[in-house]
Amino acid sequence: MDARTGLPVVGMVGGGQLARMTHQAAIALGQSLRILAADPTESAALVGAHVVLGDHRSYADLERFAVGCDAITWDHEHVAGEDIRRLAAAGHTVLPGADALVHAQDKRRMRARLGELGVGVPAWAPVVTPADIDAFAQEYGWPVVLKAATGGYDGRGVWIVGDRAEAQAVLGHGVALLAEQHVTMLRELAAVVARSPYGQIAAWPVVQTVQRDGICVEVLAPAPGLDDATAIEAQRLAIRIAGDLDVVGVLAVELFQTADGLLVNELAMRPHNSAHWTIEGSRTSQFEQHLRAVLDYPLGRTDALAPAAAMANVLGAPADGPEIDERLHHAMARWPGAKFHLYGKAPRPGRKLGHVTVLGVDPAAVRADAVAAAAYLSGGDLE
Amino acid sequence: MDARTGLPVVGMVGGGQLARMTHQAAIALGQSLRILAADPTESAALVGAHVVLGDHRSYADLERFAVGCDAITWDHEHVAGEDIRRLAAAGHTVLPGADALVHAQDKRRMRARLGELGVGVPAWAPVVTPADIDAFAQEYGWPVVLKAATGGYDGRGVWIVGDRAEAQAVLGHGVALLAEQHVTMLRELAAVVARSPYGQIAAWPVVQTVQRDGICVEVLAPAPGLDDATAIEAQRLAIRIAGDLDVVGVLAVELFQTADGLLVNELAMRPHNSAHWTIEGSRTSQFEQHLRAVLDYPLGRTDALAPAAAMANVLGAPADGPEIDERLHHAMARWPGAKFHLYGKAPRPGRKLGHVTVLGVDPAAVRADAVAAAAYLSGGDLE
Repeated sequence: MDARTGLPVVGMVGGGQLARMTHQAAIALGQSLRILAADPTESAALVGAHVVLGDHRSYADLERFAVGCDAITWDHEHVAGEDIRRLAAAGHTVLPGADALVHAQDKRRMRARLGELGVGVPAWAPVVTPADIDAFAQEYGWPVVLKAATGGYDGRGVWIVGDRAEAQAVLGHGVALLAEQHVTMLRELAAVVARSPYGQIAAWPVVQTVQRDGICVEVLAPAPGLDDATAIEAQRLAIRIAGDLDVVGVLAVELFQTADGLLVNELAMRPHNSAHWTIEGSRTSQFEQHLRAVLDYPLGRTDALAPAAAMANVLGAPADGPEIDERLHHAMARWPGAKFHLYGKAPRPGRKLGHVTVLGVDPAAVRADAVAAAAYLSGGDLE
Repeated sequence: MDARTGLPVVGMVGGGQLARMTHQAAIALGQSLRILAADPTESAALVGAHVVLGDHRSYADLERFAVGCDAITWDHEHVAGEDIRRLAAAGHTVLPGADALVHAQDKRRMRARLGELGVGVPAWAPVVTPADIDAFAQEYGWPVVLKAATGGYDGRGVWIVGDRAEAQAVLGHGVALLAEQHVTMLRELAAVVARSPYGQIAAWPVVQTVQRDGICVEVLAPAPGLDDATAIEAQRLAIRIAGDLDVVGVLAVELFQTADGLLVNELAMRPHNSAHWTIEGSRTSQFEQHLRAVLDYPLGRTDALAPAAAMANVLGAPADGPEIDERLHHAMARWPGAKFHLYGKAPRPGRKLGHVTVLGVDPAAVRADAVAAAAYLSGGDLE
């Protein structure tokens, strides 16, 4: 508890853009987010007042960071479960806790657990040998999706292999793998909710996500043309998973929409790219809601503020043409209603440098504007 | 220019809630506001990454702060004009500049200049002696409003005197004064605009402000029932003043609406309490717009996002009843759609500790909610 303001203190492990935007939201709540960053030039470290430099893989650093925090939460999934358990055993409030977070850390544990809960996931199996993959392919056909059981994100740790030789090359990486059926899907959706320790859950409208090379590049909110029954099913699924896994904070459920219904692809237990649109598009942003949840405050309203919202990520491109400051000028002039978010990162090809959100009435129009503005900021041409 | 991000650097002199909320907006633009604060516990110093401790009355401190900033702007009007001129002469970009800012610093200079421009202000005169005030009262009647020519804010430096004896007591304070006609007004309005060095100007909808003891306590956006002609007149007035005085950044024009038309009460050349509602209520908040303006970026759209918005200030009350954290819990549960803003300040009676904004359709309903939520956070009872 901050003695001067009388308000509790939240610490977030990890200094990326999620912590950066959480700090932004924290400011309104009278908070100043404490941030454990590996480097003073990380996104969140550039803007936060309480930055502790340290390594999230070091328990000593985590414990040093935890002192004085009323709640500890996560900007990423890379903190070891045993360290989270030790923090909890030492009396620190860690949200979400290790038993929930393991389902966002270990893709095999997640699939096994969702299977027990009767939640649909693509057919999958742990695989160790070429013969395991062969057997899986024999049942479900090539191509097969191979995923690193832990540690992957933004397309890293996912391989689509067309035959035995390609599969063998992936086995050569020496990481624990699972094989997953290559699902024929209509599109990808995300159902994002937040849950408090008290058990209150709030759901945002279900969105469509568009991935390129495994990286989320667009989010359309609400998912255009999604029928009410499927939207409600997706929200119910996310609400149920949040409750059953005892998630606290934001839970993003990435879904495949298929001709046969919804299948869960991945879970994330932190603010998530698929809900950046909520900063302007919903009464309560995912970042504020995550803070409310970990503080066990009542959750805020999650209704959308416009009929259509679109978010497009600004990805680093090879340096070429005008610099970012000049690009931002032009983009602001061209799209005066667009909301720009830059994360303070040095440009690097493929890196998420920021995002653009556009709200409006026509889903196709807001999507076109958001995509064009983000592409221009990424280094493309002005339309 | 920040070499790593390729973006310019803005410094704000003053560490109050305006700088705090400007930093919040800066984060989205890839910026991290530099803040000159007198004390590390000031509102903005609690949340900013680049806080320089120093005294805004010391030129040495100002110059030390200015190094590395591409633009310097102000959280308040208390920096001496000669220091601002010295900064400019030393090659620093100061926005708004001294020649504009003097009209927000010196109430006599402002009135004289607006008079020259043909802009309506209440009848006024500089006064030094009891005889001056007598003469003024003879012409315009008692009560007379006495205002400190410089340095007043939030009701400080304003006295309404009913007779000669009361006037004499104010003269005893020994500050330079002006006398102003006590205008019979229908209500107070504010027209807020932003202007860039390039000359682009953007205006928000005209709002009604409600003052108590000289402190703004409520803002209703747009001003309920305001006829279009008066609204446009108020916006035109503000646009004209911004251009004629070469204001850069946000300009708030506080107005009296009278039976005979609009009269200018005061000017502020910085983000202003009357536009806090724009954080959620407009496509572009005043804080983002102020940054865009001082960076000479194109300005963002200023349309309102809901038919009605109301903002109410949370003022410190004598400590009594539940603490702020518990109050915030209850307020969030009672008003799940309200947006809470706390400034990180230690409570003190009458101090602006935060504000609450409510958006909706019915002006009376959003006003009632915002006022009730703010009153409860201030230490009142839950309705």
